[in-house]
Amino acid sequence: MSTEERDLRQFTLDERLERDSELVTVLGLCQLRLMKDRRWPWLVLVPQREGISEIFELTPLDQTLLTFETNAVAAALKKATGARKINVGALGNVVAQLHVHIVARNEGDPNWPGPIWGHGTPEPYENGAENRLLQTLIEAL
Amino acid sequence: MSTEERDLRQFTLDERLERDSELVTVLGLCQLRLMKDRRWPWLVLVPQREGISEIFELTPLDQTLLTFETNAVAAALKKATGARKINVGALGNVVAQLHVHIVARNEGDPNWPGPIWGHGTPEPYENGAENRLLQTLIEAL
Repeated sequence: MSTEERDLRQFTLDERLERDSELVTVLGLCQLRLMKDRRWPWLVLVPQREGISEIFELTPLDQTLLTFETNAVAAALKKATGARKINVGALGNVVAQLHVHIVARNEGDPNWPGPIWGHGTPEPYENGAENRLLQTLIEAL
Repeated sequence: MSTEERDLRQFTLDERLERDSELVTVLGLCQLRLMKDRRWPWLVLVPQREGISEIFELTPLDQTLLTFETNAVAAALKKATGARKINVGALGNVVAQLHVHIVARNEGDPNWPGPIWGHGTPEPYENGAENRLLQTLIEAL
């Protein structure tokens, strides 16, 4: 299958990403999603391209778009949270569909300074904390 | 300090990156380095820009260069190793100087499918295994 044929197929979000995160907005290339885990302000960008699991499998234009969207979201998340460090990662060992994690980190947060992936159990947002975070984020975007 | 002034300052590699990795080659923007840890084929790209700790602090041109170099190295590492998945991450919780990890992962490797960062103790390469990996990688690049 050529790259063009692949891009034109209908995009279907991986069911685990669907379950573990909620849609914030759709950017030029990606769905911007918030992970349902209040332990860290944790966003995920999912390029709406079918059958892609590595960044280098995207077309050069899509790679550039992904870079632009990743960095815009990372800068907004830094501004919205005042976090010490933004962690950006594309792992995909469990969920093969390409997705980029963008996470705000601070000294003393769960597993600091280690990585967040695979650590402990998700804790759901409560009392609209989620909406306040998203409001601030969208203003920063 | 303006971005231009910052870029023109002499680049000095962080001493922990210097100690834990060795130089493979210098690309347009980045030093390509191999981590001294044979548990995973593990490369690091370090943009030769002083005082940068987040990708979004790079100029737009440098961001594009970093994307290009990251994806070229990731594709070459996949080809050279036949790995199931490439993990790409910019964390920087410990070493603030911006650096991008590019790691070849396979089912059953240490901490699979979890992340590599902060896991266990580095194991040095032996008997030239390092050189064989780099030879294959450079051919794939």
